[in-house]
Amino acid sequence: MSNKNIMEYETVELDDENSALKILDQTKLPGKAEIISLKTGEEIWNAIYLLKVRGAPAIGVAAAFGIYLLAKKADTEDYEAFYKEFCRQKEYLNSARPTAVNLSWALSRMEQVCAANAQKPVAQIKEALKKEAIAMKEEDIRVCKAIGEYGLTLVKEGDGILTHCNAGQLATCKYGTATAPIYLGQERGYHFRVFADETRPLLQGARLTAYELSASGVDVTLICDNMSGAVMRNGWVNAVFVGCDRVAANGDTANKIGTSVVAAVAARYHVPVYVCAPTSTIDMETSTGAEITIEQRPPHEVTEMWYENRMAPEGVKVYNPAFDVTDHDLIAGIVTEYGIARAPYTESLKEIFRKKQEAGNPSCMPYMEMGI
Amino acid sequence: MSNKNIMEYETVELDDENSALKILDQTKLPGKAEIISLKTGEEIWNAIYLLKVRGAPAIGVAAAFGIYLLAKKADTEDYEAFYKEFCRQKEYLNSARPTAVNLSWALSRMEQVCAANAQKPVAQIKEALKKEAIAMKEEDIRVCKAIGEYGLTLVKEGDGILTHCNAGQLATCKYGTATAPIYLGQERGYHFRVFADETRPLLQGARLTAYELSASGVDVTLICDNMSGAVMRNGWVNAVFVGCDRVAANGDTANKIGTSVVAAVAARYHVPVYVCAPTSTIDMETSTGAEITIEQRPPHEVTEMWYENRMAPEGVKVYNPAFDVTDHDLIAGIVTEYGIARAPYTESLKEIFRKKQEAGNPSCMPYMEMGI
Repeated sequence: MSNKNIMEYETVELDDENSALKILDQTKLPGKAEIISLKTGEEIWNAIYLLKVRGAPAIGVAAAFGIYLLAKKADTEDYEAFYKEFCRQKEYLNSARPTAVNLSWALSRMEQVCAANAQKPVAQIKEALKKEAIAMKEEDIRVCKAIGEYGLTLVKEGDGILTHCNAGQLATCKYGTATAPIYLGQERGYHFRVFADETRPLLQGARLTAYELSASGVDVTLICDNMSGAVMRNGWVNAVFVGCDRVAANGDTANKIGTSVVAAVAARYHVPVYVCAPTSTIDMETSTGAEITIEQRPPHEVTEMWYENRMAPEGVKVYNPAFDVTDHDLIAGIVTEYGIARAPYTESLKEIFRKKQEAGNPSCMPYMEMGI
Repeated sequence: MSNKNIMEYETVELDDENSALKILDQTKLPGKAEIISLKTGEEIWNAIYLLKVRGAPAIGVAAAFGIYLLAKKADTEDYEAFYKEFCRQKEYLNSARPTAVNLSWALSRMEQVCAANAQKPVAQIKEALKKEAIAMKEEDIRVCKAIGEYGLTLVKEGDGILTHCNAGQLATCKYGTATAPIYLGQERGYHFRVFADETRPLLQGARLTAYELSASGVDVTLICDNMSGAVMRNGWVNAVFVGCDRVAANGDTANKIGTSVVAAVAARYHVPVYVCAPTSTIDMETSTGAEITIEQRPPHEVTEMWYENRMAPEGVKVYNPAFDVTDHDLIAGIVTEYGIARAPYTESLKEIFRKKQEAGNPSCMPYMEMGI
């Protein structure tokens, strides 16, 4: 597998016989790239629970394919019996990561397909579920690709690009969000020099972003989070692309811890910071970043190095927020699938949603945690 | 030992019988605080080579005590024979860390004591060597304490202080440089809330700074390097104190990688950054930071987590500079043992050296690598 371009694999896909969900097992990365086939409810539940598949869009699509596969096995022609079994499986899958909004959103969207087709034969409902799951995957790819297209207008051949955490292909069905301009550019013959922040404490940048970019043949250099200053001071970075977990109506952006540090450093060295945000992550009900609650995570993620080595004194106090808020004035643009919003964001984000409404696509994906 | 305040131990000291060098074995930290006794040349050489003692001032003083102990064993009354043996031991110790300027500087200073006392009986030369080593240790403590006194004028009771890497007691004979205001304040009843950056890739902040501060009863919270933005945005930090490896004549400062990141973030949140710099680290022959060569270190420090776990793809490119340069305009003050220099540094640093000259103390310690 190591000789094959990772872009040739799908993060999440249905196998040719429509009998198994195939995923790239992310718990084996970066050591080993292994595609695994999941057929039973337990296998699918475990894959989500154990982060074998991770990243909000990828989890959502995996759950959609998963519930289709499980519903397909229901051996009945009676809608009520079928629906009861569907709901049982849905609740089961939904319990794999109870706080992951996109998981329950994807499963609910599949449930709506059942309800909307209740009068049809069960075989047709099963077919409709399959089509919906495929549509969700295609939507995800379309959104990422559109973000890539807009993002690509912000850079030029040979540019240096810095990214933080993993808002990459591994978190989506293809292209990723922050990586979309990079992959799309590569398809078109651009040669970017990418710097990937390792992203402490969980090292998604080192384990996942450096992996997927280098496996795809992108010129990527891994750095520690505290090296962004040196790299930008050297003049090696022309643009920063990051993903996001939630964008407020004024453009304040919650993303993986350290994003606000990258943004402050970029401001110092006059490097523009672009937030790649599917409209589903833009929350117009949240007026500013001050309203965003930041998840706190356990100290051992910081004090014990990856797996067992303890690298800080026993009992030391640790502050370990999973995300931080980057103020809107540090953001040069918010790249969505409907175009690039620029300051003042209170206006431009509304305009993005007007375009989305006009396109007749009110809500294709929900608020998504790219995190972890 | 865990119940005893680390401040009660000496990083480096001569034992009561003048027969052994006692050091706190830093390779055992943070797991275990162990004082070891070194008597033979091999033991002393190994302690320096294996980083059991580290930090420029501490290494310098350890080497001074070490060469005294080895010279003391010379069983001759003949100066030439004694001096030959002294030089043999000096070259041996000096080979432990060939690039550490302070190691060779300390040994050369001890050699000058031999030369200056060549006409005296060997027993008196040995006594003079002991006095010189003790004087070097006292100088180090005096310099650190003076930096602490000046630094303490920059903060007030209850302040939040952020520090990066370890410019602490463990790198010096007492007080440290960046930590000197913290320890001195603590002796006087101040209650600071200190945030220690873990300092990737080698984690000196987690392993050493968080250790020595918490063992000393200071309220310290460990954070990843990419959390400084979150902490400062929360308004928890009133001042940043960092050490330095070399300060140029215009105030540009080379220090542990990530210092320029902290400084850019601090600028964003209007937090003053103070560089704690013994005058020995101020290099008036270097006009700006552009002239400072930055040591590059091997990729495995980044890609393999502490000890054996590989956390990044095989063969990925890594940029791993040991230091970065913080531009002088990001520095609110340079705290020396002769006072606090403020912008414009080209003038104020000259004034510091004028004061030093007036004090009749032209050069008490050399350019020192606090690093690693």
